[in-house]
Amino acid sequence: MLGVTILGNNSAVPAYDRHPTSQILSMQNELFMIDCGEGAQIQMMRYKIRRSKISNIFISHLHGDHYFGLIGLITSFGLLGRTQDLTVYAPGNLEEIIQLQLKAGDVHLPYQLHIKEIKENGTLLENNKIKVTCFKTNHRITCYGFRFDEVKKTRKINAAQCLAAQIPSSFYTALQYGADYIRKDGSVIKNETLTFMAPTPKSYAFCADTKYDESLLEHINDVSLMYHETTYLDNFQDRAGDRYHSTSKQAAKMAILANTKRLLIGHFSSKYENLDLFEREAKSVFAHTDIAQEGVTFIV
Amino acid sequence: MLGVTILGNNSAVPAYDRHPTSQILSMQNELFMIDCGEGAQIQMMRYKIRRSKISNIFISHLHGDHYFGLIGLITSFGLLGRTQDLTVYAPGNLEEIIQLQLKAGDVHLPYQLHIKEIKENGTLLENNKIKVTCFKTNHRITCYGFRFDEVKKTRKINAAQCLAAQIPSSFYTALQYGADYIRKDGSVIKNETLTFMAPTPKSYAFCADTKYDESLLEHINDVSLMYHETTYLDNFQDRAGDRYHSTSKQAAKMAILANTKRLLIGHFSSKYENLDLFEREAKSVFAHTDIAQEGVTFIV
Repeated sequence: MLGVTILGNNSAVPAYDRHPTSQILSMQNELFMIDCGEGAQIQMMRYKIRRSKISNIFISHLHGDHYFGLIGLITSFGLLGRTQDLTVYAPGNLEEIIQLQLKAGDVHLPYQLHIKEIKENGTLLENNKIKVTCFKTNHRITCYGFRFDEVKKTRKINAAQCLAAQIPSSFYTALQYGADYIRKDGSVIKNETLTFMAPTPKSYAFCADTKYDESLLEHINDVSLMYHETTYLDNFQDRAGDRYHSTSKQAAKMAILANTKRLLIGHFSSKYENLDLFEREAKSVFAHTDIAQEGVTFIV
Repeated sequence: MLGVTILGNNSAVPAYDRHPTSQILSMQNELFMIDCGEGAQIQMMRYKIRRSKISNIFISHLHGDHYFGLIGLITSFGLLGRTQDLTVYAPGNLEEIIQLQLKAGDVHLPYQLHIKEIKENGTLLENNKIKVTCFKTNHRITCYGFRFDEVKKTRKINAAQCLAAQIPSSFYTALQYGADYIRKDGSVIKNETLTFMAPTPKSYAFCADTKYDESLLEHINDVSLMYHETTYLDNFQDRAGDRYHSTSKQAAKMAILANTKRLLIGHFSSKYENLDLFEREAKSVFAHTDIAQEGVTFIV
């Protein structure tokens, strides 16, 4: 299961009780935080996110509405007695900013904090369950989007068939990786008769802040779920471009071109109190669109 | 009228939907912000504080729960097109912290931001309506409390009496400052018969974070309203002392010794979900105590 919980869906200035950008991705039984606008730690409590399950935080860029909540979360983790490491990935001098504030408050964290500067497109994290890559978006300051891919899973054992065919359990791992079973008499039992297909790996692309830019497509193709910002409605295309942001219909067009299954839209300008038009405009182009409502978990 | 609106009443880690320290003082038709914990700008919107009326912000110290909301407020002021100056008073290197973050986000404010470092006890601001002084408290890092005094007001003209006595209006200002009126024939009309008494100036003391310390009394004596922290209930006196904080009964004792009229208590530890005991303990010592409930304006 892949789930994205929205903690904040607004752009720079908080408005109408909407908060700045922050999301929690649940994937392979781990939680990843993506951006951390002001108030994110309070939203996490409100929506009962298990903070201790977060070991990796990805910050897209150093505009305040994407990271001003981070220092509060880092210090709260310390006050709550956290001991496991925390790694934060971000472009720019985030480490300097965080360390300066820890020093000013004479704060000594009881856990290891690693802040890794993102300098180019590539892989940030890879283990036997998940791979996280980053890609530069087209924004006013250096900004990265993130793609999360489940690592291809192994086939599932068909226990009844294996038992009937008297396959030794020591061979199960080989079966999961697709091997056929060869009896002592040389006869072959095909893997497909002893296993079920592996589930299709799921994936999520977070396109951060960006103007409409088809050159991002190569990084976000074919994901199960994609988040794309829609700061403005479509009649503000020019302003969106000038400010390195996107509109409702541009996000929807990217969703089609990227061949995603579902689209989440967010980062709404505080000029808009009502978000219905965002949904209507985006859905007129790409039907499988949802407003990234705060407090809602979108499950794939 | 003097009014204090509570935006946050909790100590370091936000809990039970309580926010870190922040207050808005309304005095002589001006708004002053005292401390600015994370989420303060969102609380201001929730409680309909007119942000544009704030020109001075006082930060007690650089523990995050007292200032992490400031950078967000400063940048939001910019995005909202503020043009009037903003002055922030704080001990320590707050200016370096704020400027580093503005630079990282390539933020150019459309208004003048002045950050003044507090280095010693004394007067921070004084005009013909208000005087603000600061005093060092007894905390783990350098921390200041603030005292706000209305400047002594002038007497009010008794228009009916002045008319009856044919006092020329050019003499009204002198009357307001207490002068008697002397007729050409040398006879004297006493000021008291031509004016009403000036209202008693009101005052507010914000005692910031501090352990129990009677040496603060000289700075906070005789205020109309006093805020004192009560991080712990009274059975945690030792822990309070160790951590440079105070208890419910200690705050109430300070209120008595300072001869204040009313006491507000806050900065509750996140160990406490229910605050009733704080009120009960403090009131057992000083009856005129109120819990600094968020969203409530306390008027004197």
